[in-house]
Amino acid sequence: MVKARKYVFRKQFDGFPKESDLELVEEELPPVKDGEFLAEAIYLSVDPYMRAYAPRLSLGTTFIGSQVAKVVESKNPKYPVGKHVVGEFGWRTHTISDGKDGIFPVLNPEGLPLSLSLGVLGMPGNTAYFGLLEICQPKAGETVVVSGAAGAVGSIVGQIAKIKGCTVIGIAGTDEKGKWLVEELQFDRFINYKDKDFEKELKEATPKGVDCYFDNVGGEISNAVMERMNQYGRISVCGAISGYNSGGDVKVGMVQLFVVSKQLKMEGFVVRRWTDRWFEGIEQNKKWIKEGKMRYRETMTEGFDNMFKAFVDMLKGGNVGKAVVKA
Amino acid sequence: MVKARKYVFRKQFDGFPKESDLELVEEELPPVKDGEFLAEAIYLSVDPYMRAYAPRLSLGTTFIGSQVAKVVESKNPKYPVGKHVVGEFGWRTHTISDGKDGIFPVLNPEGLPLSLSLGVLGMPGNTAYFGLLEICQPKAGETVVVSGAAGAVGSIVGQIAKIKGCTVIGIAGTDEKGKWLVEELQFDRFINYKDKDFEKELKEATPKGVDCYFDNVGGEISNAVMERMNQYGRISVCGAISGYNSGGDVKVGMVQLFVVSKQLKMEGFVVRRWTDRWFEGIEQNKKWIKEGKMRYRETMTEGFDNMFKAFVDMLKGGNVGKAVVKA
Repeated sequence: MVKARKYVFRKQFDGFPKESDLELVEEELPPVKDGEFLAEAIYLSVDPYMRAYAPRLSLGTTFIGSQVAKVVESKNPKYPVGKHVVGEFGWRTHTISDGKDGIFPVLNPEGLPLSLSLGVLGMPGNTAYFGLLEICQPKAGETVVVSGAAGAVGSIVGQIAKIKGCTVIGIAGTDEKGKWLVEELQFDRFINYKDKDFEKELKEATPKGVDCYFDNVGGEISNAVMERMNQYGRISVCGAISGYNSGGDVKVGMVQLFVVSKQLKMEGFVVRRWTDRWFEGIEQNKKWIKEGKMRYRETMTEGFDNMFKAFVDMLKGGNVGKAVVKA
Repeated sequence: MVKARKYVFRKQFDGFPKESDLELVEEELPPVKDGEFLAEAIYLSVDPYMRAYAPRLSLGTTFIGSQVAKVVESKNPKYPVGKHVVGEFGWRTHTISDGKDGIFPVLNPEGLPLSLSLGVLGMPGNTAYFGLLEICQPKAGETVVVSGAAGAVGSIVGQIAKIKGCTVIGIAGTDEKGKWLVEELQFDRFINYKDKDFEKELKEATPKGVDCYFDNVGGEISNAVMERMNQYGRISVCGAISGYNSGGDVKVGMVQLFVVSKQLKMEGFVVRRWTDRWFEGIEQNKKWIKEGKMRYRETMTEGFDNMFKAFVDMLKGGNVGKAVVKA
């Protein structure tokens, strides 16, 4: 008999998630039936979308999320023992699956870490790839601003914009992140949104205005970027992390004033929109990594017991690159 | 010697425009030279964009705006005496022009009032036509919400959406406006944003959600509409009148939270974008009027001396349909 451990969603988040909102419980799994397999988590993902999606999640269910897992028992020939998968199994150590839904292949065996399937070679990498290229359609020579620039998505967005020949300005909240963005990822400039001269620095950094804005944060940071945007600027809205933990109570200046006068196009997206092109994005990012044009970093937390801590640290901006938990 | 009267922009608006921000002065016009003509204002337009644009307008210049004028003296064969033109001459009674810039033909002589060239058969009509059809791309059976619904633009937007087979909900601020929208313009429903149950009424009025939103106002009204929008909803942002008189100080909930989760597309526009298709919009609106499918109303103020009053009344929502001043 296999015992799984899992986090059950017990209480709707109010502001920043509290440890007592989730309960870590043990569950005895039934025997594996024909067509099923048992997978054991190796790496688990913590992402901003989990906080955003929580209000629509039922209490009593396992908290949502993807993981890289290894098949350890199988009665399904498509998933033999030893195979690795990316599964939308939630926050749990062991999962019985029939292999039908929410399973993606691990596409990065060639010398790259398995955990990248949760980052640059997985959902966040595709979020950056499609969200920037399809919605902003950046052209060489244009100025691209990315907020949440040192996160799993933002750090890839900026690098893709550089590959496309753009001038790239990254916005994040610590100078350590900024150093990484400029020195290792070749961003043209970093601006710390916590600086009291943030708006002035942003103006100086964008002498030709801003053509594309990849927005992970929302709020006044985004208004300051819109203030700098050129006519017909494009905004890809990937997230609004500055509002996730405030219950919608954060009040900001109205964006419509910028949207009209500058004729901006702002579009939100969920990466599932491009499910039919999923492997295109992952293969392209992998190619750029192999060519040395794209770098990545992971903030790795050890231990399934530390899932909650890793989650909240990430929400508070404690991660550089992709936040991952090693089970 | 002809004496023109004109309104000079003397003081930048702070909140709602004050009468002392503009000065009504007399100006002696020089003789008409070869290639020029003298036009006398018949109808003058007051529009929300004038308030929005004012911060970028230099003090000491004539306040901006269009008028229907009649050529009363001419040394330009293209503009013979007696011809009517729509000119971007600003708030003035007499204008000498060389006919090169900012002049549109009057396209509605066939039994329709000349003043419509400032409304449904002019810039506001084209704003409605292109702003709705090009940006929202409404499909038959979809639900379309229009704010500022009883204004020069909103009232046309709603009627075009009805012609295209949509369910149309108009938002405005008086029940008299609502009566006109529903009883005469065939809107499916009117909601008064001043009602304390506004959000509840909006929810009841949109059982299938909202697919398209034509936004003239911005602010919390627009957030309430976004709350009701369906996945992949489209928002055409024409104006943000709720923010024009507040110096950007109105604070509202952040739109990015809706934009991401519902994958909304929000686009602002200025109607000049479609200058190359200008006559298409006007001819189509005229056709719909002739066919009895489109109605219009004007709120007419008598006298050039009352320009300022008409302007502020319009900004406060005092008009039904197009606000026009008869010189």
